[in-house]
Amino acid sequence: MKKLEKITPQQEDFAKWYTDVIKNGDLMAYGSSKGAIIFKPLSFGIWDNIRKIADEKFKEKDVANVYLPLLIPEGLLQKEKDHLEGFNPELATVTEVGGKKLAEKFFIRPTSEVLFADFFRNEIESHNDLPLIYNQWVNVLRWEKTTNPFLRTREFLWQEGHTMHANSAEAIKLTYEMLNVYIDLVQNYLAIPVIAGNKTEHEKFSGADFTLTIEAMMKDGKALQSGTSHYLAQNFTKAFEIAFKNKNNEQEFAYGTSWGISTRLLGALIMTHGDDRGIIIPPKIAPVQIDIIEILAKKDPKVHEVALEITKKLNKVFAVKLDDSDKSPGFKAANSEIHGTPLRIEVGPNDLINNQVTFVRRDKIEKISVPLDKIEARAKEILDSIQSNLFTMASQRIKNNLEIVTSYDEFKKAIANNKWAVTFFEGTSQDEVKIKEETGASTRCIPFDSLISISKGKCFYTGKETERVVIFAKAY
Amino acid sequence: MKKLEKITPQQEDFAKWYTDVIKNGDLMAYGSSKGAIIFKPLSFGIWDNIRKIADEKFKEKDVANVYLPLLIPEGLLQKEKDHLEGFNPELATVTEVGGKKLAEKFFIRPTSEVLFADFFRNEIESHNDLPLIYNQWVNVLRWEKTTNPFLRTREFLWQEGHTMHANSAEAIKLTYEMLNVYIDLVQNYLAIPVIAGNKTEHEKFSGADFTLTIEAMMKDGKALQSGTSHYLAQNFTKAFEIAFKNKNNEQEFAYGTSWGISTRLLGALIMTHGDDRGIIIPPKIAPVQIDIIEILAKKDPKVHEVALEITKKLNKVFAVKLDDSDKSPGFKAANSEIHGTPLRIEVGPNDLINNQVTFVRRDKIEKISVPLDKIEARAKEILDSIQSNLFTMASQRIKNNLEIVTSYDEFKKAIANNKWAVTFFEGTSQDEVKIKEETGASTRCIPFDSLISISKGKCFYTGKETERVVIFAKAY
Repeated sequence: MKKLEKITPQQEDFAKWYTDVIKNGDLMAYGSSKGAIIFKPLSFGIWDNIRKIADEKFKEKDVANVYLPLLIPEGLLQKEKDHLEGFNPELATVTEVGGKKLAEKFFIRPTSEVLFADFFRNEIESHNDLPLIYNQWVNVLRWEKTTNPFLRTREFLWQEGHTMHANSAEAIKLTYEMLNVYIDLVQNYLAIPVIAGNKTEHEKFSGADFTLTIEAMMKDGKALQSGTSHYLAQNFTKAFEIAFKNKNNEQEFAYGTSWGISTRLLGALIMTHGDDRGIIIPPKIAPVQIDIIEILAKKDPKVHEVALEITKKLNKVFAVKLDDSDKSPGFKAANSEIHGTPLRIEVGPNDLINNQVTFVRRDKIEKISVPLDKIEARAKEILDSIQSNLFTMASQRIKNNLEIVTSYDEFKKAIANNKWAVTFFEGTSQDEVKIKEETGASTRCIPFDSLISISKGKCFYTGKETERVVIFAKAY
Repeated sequence: MKKLEKITPQQEDFAKWYTDVIKNGDLMAYGSSKGAIIFKPLSFGIWDNIRKIADEKFKEKDVANVYLPLLIPEGLLQKEKDHLEGFNPELATVTEVGGKKLAEKFFIRPTSEVLFADFFRNEIESHNDLPLIYNQWVNVLRWEKTTNPFLRTREFLWQEGHTMHANSAEAIKLTYEMLNVYIDLVQNYLAIPVIAGNKTEHEKFSGADFTLTIEAMMKDGKALQSGTSHYLAQNFTKAFEIAFKNKNNEQEFAYGTSWGISTRLLGALIMTHGDDRGIIIPPKIAPVQIDIIEILAKKDPKVHEVALEITKKLNKVFAVKLDDSDKSPGFKAANSEIHGTPLRIEVGPNDLINNQVTFVRRDKIEKISVPLDKIEARAKEILDSIQSNLFTMASQRIKNNLEIVTSYDEFKKAIANNKWAVTFFEGTSQDEVKIKEETGASTRCIPFDSLISISKGKCFYTGKETERVVIFAKAY
C-alpha cells in the first residue's frame, strides 16, 4: 500500500504541484527512456472516454476511422519542403534492423500528412470519389528537447483527421466544422473554456494555408493550445499530384484539411481544474464518477450492507467504485480526492441512524446529508452541478486574466503578471520571434471574437494602424 | 467510381483469391513501404468491433487498460536473453534523430514484456500491490522478410495483456482464463472454430514457461494461430528483479503472464468465411450488418420512400446502410456481396405490389420474401441464423480435415493433402525443425482434448511410446 505524499501548494510552485498531483493521483509513471511516460489506468481511462465522445461526434460528420503505417520512407517526406523543414529536427529515424543497415531510412511519423497524401493519390480518380473524410487514433513521435508529462512528451497519443475535397469552399467549411467539434468536446465535456481563432503566419502548421486553434488558460495563467484544424489547400495535393477529374471533365488538384487533438488535453484538464488536494476530473469524462466509502464498518455491519446496496444501484447509471477496505476514513477521503473523483458518498453508522448518507463534492468544501431514498436523484443533480461549476470557475479565470494593452510597456507588465495580452498587432514573424525572446510570450491566436470594443487601433509594437487583434501569452 | 474486378476462384489459386477479395472488398491498400498496409474503414471497423467486445470481456476479468511507450532502450532488451534472441533479427532500430546519431539505440517494440517489467518493478512493493492486470491496444513492429496483408505485416495492431501475481497458481489460472476469453471471442463473435492447446517447447514464446494457443483452420486447410496466452513464471521478474514482500514478510519474485490477439484475426476471418463472391463478415462483428438496396427506384417513387422508412426503422437496432444510388441492381448486389455484408434487403416495385421485400443472405444462395410488417423480426432471426451457420460450416470443415496418422508416410500424405495430422509425438525441437523442412508442417498444439480415443501410442517419428498427442499442419 503506497502512502499519500504531500502535495506542494499551487501558489508555492506550480510546476512542482503539477508533478506532485500526477504522480500521487496515479496518472502516470516515467517510462524507460527520457521524455517517455506511461499512461496508468486513470489517465488512459480519461483518454479513452475522450476518444469515445469524439468518435461519436466524428460519426455525425461522416468521419471514417482508418489506420496508416507508423513509418514514413525518407523519400516521401521530402516531397513537401515546408512540412519537412518544420519537422526535420525532431524525426526519430530507423536506420537498421537486427544490426544490419537498411538501404532506405524510415522516419517514425511525427504526423501523417504525407502518408495520407500517398494513400489518397491512389484512391481518387473523379469528383465522385470525393470527399474522403478519414481519421486515425495513433501514437506519434517528436523528439522534443525539453519534456513535461502529458504536455510535451516525445511520444504522444492523438487523433489526426485528414480529408480531401473537390473544392476549396467545402474544405474550408470542414476546417471550421472540426474546430467546432473540438470546442464542443473541450468545453462541454472537459469543462475547459477556450478562446478560438486563427494562428498567425508564424505559428501556423508547416504546410497549411491557415490554422485554426482553441487556446485554454491554465491556473498559472499560461496558455495551452488544445486542438487545431488546418486548411491545407492544394499544398500537399500539388506536391503529391493528387488530382481528380472535376465536373467539367478537367484534371484538378484536390483540397485538403487536417485536424487533431492529443493527450496534451490531459495536461490541460489537470492544470485547469486541479487544486492543492489533487486533480479534479469533470463528471462527464471521469472513469470513476462516484467513490462510495465505508466509515467504521466494523462498528456496524449495516454500513457494508447499505454501501453495497447503494453501489449496485448507482452502478447501473454511473461509474462507481466502492472502498470497503479497513483503512481510516481520513485516508479514504484523501485517496478519493487525490484521484479527482468528482463525488464521494460516505456511508457511516451515525448517518444510518437517520437513514441518510453524506455527499462530499470534490469541487467545493461542502458536505450534504442525503436521505437513502433520494441518493440516485441527488447524485445526478450534484454531478451536473459539479460539471457546470468547474466550467464556470475556469471561465471566470479567463475573464479576469485577459488584459487589453496598447503599449509595449503595458504588454510587458501584463505578461510578467501571467496575464494574456489582448492587443492590436500587425507585426511580422520576425517581430513575433523578437517579442518572444524579450518577454517569453507568443501569439496564441487572432480571436474570432475580437475582445476589443473598437474596430481598429495602433499596433502596440510597430505603431501602425491595424484591425487585427491578437492574443499573446506565455504558453506550454 | 471504381469498377468491380474479377475475383480468382478459391479452387484455382487461393493466395490470389485472398489478394483479390481484400482489395476488391476495400479492406486494405498497400502502404508507402514494403510490408506495410493501410487499414481502410471496413477492416478498421471490424478491428474496432473486436476491440470493443474484447474490452467488455477484459473488464469482467478486472483488466485495466494502460499505454506504455513505443521505444525500448537497447540496454533494457538485453536483460532477458531468450527473449532478446527470439526477437533480435526483426528489430527496427532508431539510431538517429534529425540526422544526428543518438548515444543509445532504441528498438521499436516487437512486444512489450521488458517495458512492462521495467514499469512493474517500481509499482510492486508488497503482496498488497498484487495482482496487477494490465492491457494495452497498440501497434508493434517485426521486420518480417515475407509479408502477407493482415497475416504477416511488418507493423500490426494488437492487444497485449501483462500481469503480475503473488503466486504461480494464480498466474497460471489467469493464463487459462485469458485463453478462454479468446475462445469465446473468436468462436462466438468471429464465428471461427478453434482447437485449443499447449504449444510445444519449440513453438512456445521466447521467455515463457509455457504458451497456450488457439488454432483456426483456413479454407485451404492451413492453420492460423489466432491468439496466445503465456505463463512467464519468474523469467522476467528475476531478470528485472521484480520482487515483493510476501505474506511471510520474505522477498519473493512475482509471477507473470502475457497474452495477445492481433489484426491477424482479420486474415483468419476472411479465409474462414470468404467465398468466390468476396468476403463474408459474421453479423456480430460486421460494421454494416444490413445493406438496403433500391431497385428500379426511378420507375416507382414508392421504392425510395419505403427503403428510407425501413432504413430508419432498422437503424435503431442494426448497423444499416442504404444504397439509393442509380447504379444497376446487379452492381449493387455484387457490391454488397464483395464487402461481405451478411444480409441484403432488396426493395423493388414488384415486391411492393405484394407489400413485401426480398431478403438475400450472404452465406447461402437464398432469396426470402418478407412482408413489410415482419422485417425487423425476420432480420434478427436471419442474422442470428447466418452467425450460427458460418460457425457450423467452418466447424464441419475442421472435422473433415483432421486426420489421425500413425506413420511418417501417412503423415506426409495427410500434410500433402492439406489436412491436419493428429498424432502421438514425443520428438525434440530438432525433430520438429527436420519435419518442417521435409513436409512444410509445424506443430500447432498439444490439444486439450486429445482427439485420439486411445490414451497412448507410438510416436509416428521416433517410434517411442508416448501419451502426448500433437497436431501438425502447414500454417500461415
